Amino acid sequence: MRVRNRKGATELLEAHPEYVVLDPESAKGHWQEIFGNKNPIYIEVGSGKGQFISGMAKNHPDINFIGIDIQKSVLSYALDKVLATDVPNIRLLWVDGDALTNYFEAGEIDRLYLNFSDPWPKKRHEKRRLTYKSFLETYQAILPSQGEIHFKTDNRGLFEYSLVSLSQYGMILDGVWLDLHASEIEGNVRTEYEEKFSSKGQVIYRLEAHFPE
Amino acid sequence: MRVRNRKGATELLEAHPEYVVLDPESAKGHWQEIFGNKNPIYIEVGSGKGQFISGMAKNHPDINFIGIDIQKSVLSYALDKVLATDVPNIRLLWVDGDALTNYFEAGEIDRLYLNFSDPWPKKRHEKRRLTYKSFLETYQAILPSQGEIHFKTDNRGLFEYSLVSLSQYGMILDGVWLDLHASEIEGNVRTEYEEKFSSKGQVIYRLEAHFPE
Repeated sequence: MRVRNRKGATELLEAHPEYVVLDPESAKGHWQEIFGNKNPIYIEVGSGKGQFISGMAKNHPDINFIGIDIQKSVLSYALDKVLATDVPNIRLLWVDGDALTNYFEAGEIDRLYLNFSDPWPKKRHEKRRLTYKSFLETYQAILPSQGEIHFKTDNRGLFEYSLVSLSQYGMILDGVWLDLHASEIEGNVRTEYEEKFSSKGQVIYRLEAHFPE
Repeated sequence: MRVRNRKGATELLEAHPEYVVLDPESAKGHWQEIFGNKNPIYIEVGSGKGQFISGMAKNHPDINFIGIDIQKSVLSYALDKVLATDVPNIRLLWVDGDALTNYFEAGEIDRLYLNFSDPWPKKRHEKRRLTYKSFLETYQAILPSQGEIHFKTDNRGLFEYSLVSLSQYGMILDGVWLDLHASEIEGNVRTEYEEKFSSKGQVIYRLEAHFPE
């Protein structure tokens, strides 16, 4: 998600250390302490304006959620949502998705969400897609054995690519939805993008997959 | 594909032993002799009225094709197409898809096509779907190591199911198309169903996958 630079974004993030982890390197291996419990930890890579992660945290008080985005302005909008939601089981992280092993120990994360990631449609940008094999390696490094990825998008090309990329990496599909909103699935929390594109009649694709042992 | 019984179907099939293999058990292990060459052999399980298999045989003279259907009347319509196409690299087989190991040796078939298979949408009919694990076992038994399946359908539920079923079986996806006719793909031969459903604006799904070693 690209947004215009937001004035005061940095100050806003720094003013809320109870939600924004400002020194993520030092958090590595200490996430249970940060949350103050031993509940599972789910992360969203590319959390955008935070509607999904906030909604999930509210619906699942026994799970801890971490929203990650590379853009400060985007993350500051997610913070607005987090402040409005006002639940203790959520943190935000201003870092890059390809550096996750700097912030999480092996197996420290229990599940990983990717929602409406940038499709990078040009072949020469394949390596930037969040389901490219180098990203999958990074995800596998912080997830447990057979750890899960849940992914949704409105972008047909990215979904086709991702099905193949995950499969060729050795991941196993547990579920595929080719028109999510026409399917019976419980507890789907819509992202901002999802509401926008779905209202235009665009189908939403979704998959669940796990890494091999 | 279901069709009304066709009067004279049996007589028509029996009148053309040059295309219809009437004693398939005795063909097992002898398909290269039947075709009179050592070219690769591709089969279509559920070949319906034969437009796909005839078109493929015409377009690929260096590949041998076998169309298989369980219904005599359906196969007799395929024979009409085969007679009109008049190429030597095609045979028809009136047998059931779950008994393929009775008619083919291990590795005797080089690729397997499934096109617009019956979706059997009810959960209690899952075992009848041609991408159910017991069918995959049968296909694997007659294909070489890393043998390929190419599958297309207009049925969303069947395609979702098949992606998961193949993946859980250990197959690896090589390509996925979620709107085949909107994609650039060379050499797609349309089936009767494909033309009919596509003209109604229905998207066509397609995948290519291979078995593990």
